[in-house]
Amino acid sequence: MNLIAKSCQRVVLAHRPQGALQPEHFRLETCALPELKDGEVLVRSHFLSIDPYMRARLDDVKSYAPPQALGETMIGGAVGVVVESRHPQWQAGDKVAGMLGWSEMAVMDGALLRAITDTRFPLSWHLGVLGMPGATAWYGVTQLLQIKEGETLVVSAASGAVGSLVGQLAKLRGCRVVGIAGGAEKCAYVRDVLGFDACVDYKSEHAEQALALACPQGIDALFENVGGAMFDASLLLMNPYGRIAMCGMIAAYEGQEYAVKNMRMVISMRLTLRGFIITEHLNFWPQAWKELSELLARNKLVYRESITQSLALAPQALIGVLHGQNVGKQVVRVCAEEE
Amino acid sequence: MNLIAKSCQRVVLAHRPQGALQPEHFRLETCALPELKDGEVLVRSHFLSIDPYMRARLDDVKSYAPPQALGETMIGGAVGVVVESRHPQWQAGDKVAGMLGWSEMAVMDGALLRAITDTRFPLSWHLGVLGMPGATAWYGVTQLLQIKEGETLVVSAASGAVGSLVGQLAKLRGCRVVGIAGGAEKCAYVRDVLGFDACVDYKSEHAEQALALACPQGIDALFENVGGAMFDASLLLMNPYGRIAMCGMIAAYEGQEYAVKNMRMVISMRLTLRGFIITEHLNFWPQAWKELSELLARNKLVYRESITQSLALAPQALIGVLHGQNVGKQVVRVCAEEE
Repeated sequence: MNLIAKSCQRVVLAHRPQGALQPEHFRLETCALPELKDGEVLVRSHFLSIDPYMRARLDDVKSYAPPQALGETMIGGAVGVVVESRHPQWQAGDKVAGMLGWSEMAVMDGALLRAITDTRFPLSWHLGVLGMPGATAWYGVTQLLQIKEGETLVVSAASGAVGSLVGQLAKLRGCRVVGIAGGAEKCAYVRDVLGFDACVDYKSEHAEQALALACPQGIDALFENVGGAMFDASLLLMNPYGRIAMCGMIAAYEGQEYAVKNMRMVISMRLTLRGFIITEHLNFWPQAWKELSELLARNKLVYRESITQSLALAPQALIGVLHGQNVGKQVVRVCAEEE
Repeated sequence: MNLIAKSCQRVVLAHRPQGALQPEHFRLETCALPELKDGEVLVRSHFLSIDPYMRARLDDVKSYAPPQALGETMIGGAVGVVVESRHPQWQAGDKVAGMLGWSEMAVMDGALLRAITDTRFPLSWHLGVLGMPGATAWYGVTQLLQIKEGETLVVSAASGAVGSLVGQLAKLRGCRVVGIAGGAEKCAYVRDVLGFDACVDYKSEHAEQALALACPQGIDALFENVGGAMFDASLLLMNPYGRIAMCGMIAAYEGQEYAVKNMRMVISMRLTLRGFIITEHLNFWPQAWKELSELLARNKLVYRESITQSLALAPQALIGVLHGQNVGKQVVRVCAEEE
């Protein structure tokens, strides 16, 4: 099997960051690939997924998952193609998704891979709208927020992978949808391309007043990706029995923990806040992707990616996501081959 | 009907407080009682209920209820006896509870009164364990927190009307119960008299560490009455899928809004926070009182009151509650007659 590389490039965590993440916290290195054991599969990655949660995993704190280990392949989802298989479910050429990490190739337990059989869309989309972010948006909107027609939904990081889908799903369900994003360009994209009713630039001078003006009937459902001052401002606008899905707190991931001032609204407006981790709700993913892929096929959903070229730039891609430099889903191309 | 007073003493809100509440914000005055119309009832109050929520009503902010009006009788629950009735359900001598306000007598719509027919307990107990605070504790523990045997429950303001019942109800359901209270005396009461497993003095030097030590298995259910630094410390100890009932934020009622630092725990531990207002769940009250009265009758529940003598001291009684000077349920006796 001389076509199969026995070594490949990978990115490992070299130093644990304190505060702002830098490219130097990672290291690109060559690693040897082990021989396959029974049940294992060798996968060549085509695209890596870059997601905000990755920053939180770099801290050595109590959380839902153990921290990223130093010197080990950086964790993360990827899509690719099976190169060699000793698992009965897989054969060379199969398209798969899994937690392959920041590496050109990975040896995986075949049971932990997911088959990509819907070939109507680019492979990389299975890291976004048809992957974890799509499931996240769908689960939050339909299961946690339980929005009703005519309600007002607010979503932060509105131009991002999850936020862009949250708003569009809510819009399709008859909600007034208000996004929060950073900068005039992103806000214009959210309004004009994604079709939200309004988008507030959190970097603008009177962002909190702008949010209030954009929500004349208050907020019934909040999909929170960021935390920080705009989360506090959103709390102040919540209507009675408002629901809040706590999905992410990017604002706090770089060590600047924001302190929330308006918690009294939880009582006075009888709010329900729910934190969730989408990987604990795998049973909902097929249902989510069914709706999302049908919407895509019918051109009812806008989906955009930011694609970084080369594995070596994965750290910069993550830093970019943490600083809001991406529009849409951030992925990294790690294989020059055509899909 | 010359036995019926045509005027009585009442306490009105004279000035809206900014920050710390003072007795001077209220005024004792004599008011005339109107003639009864059809459907109305004249009630002589025996005891007034003093509750932390009253402070929040004094602020002119967006909340679940309109603010207390200036120059009007201070709102509040009370128990008393019907003096005169033009409502078919009531006759003189009936014992009733209702939102009679801080007044010796009140003319009420008969439909808004609740009959007190269980005469096994002192009349004033129907303002506490068999009133709104009892329903609050029961609803929070059984409906919102849904505690299970072996779990750890933490409750703040543990020696107060609600907290003391929350902990005892959880203890009876097989939980490890940890209270938070102010001062060694209250903590000893919570542990030794109420039977909690532990009680942390939030005024002590290492209160946050003491809370962690008192919860070696973390916290599964938090009944929050206070907010503030101990709420933040509790968040840090929450276990996966922990539930938080947000009942009150006494720490913030005097205008010193506390900013919550550990909101990221909501996501990382997949917490559910729910604010509630017990008057929106009246359908649960009879069920709550049925269990509580049975426990009282079987001597399975400790219930204590702090009784202030005279209507004129009601403002001081409320200020005392806000500063944690009461142990158990705070009431004001407004009628010298025997029950």
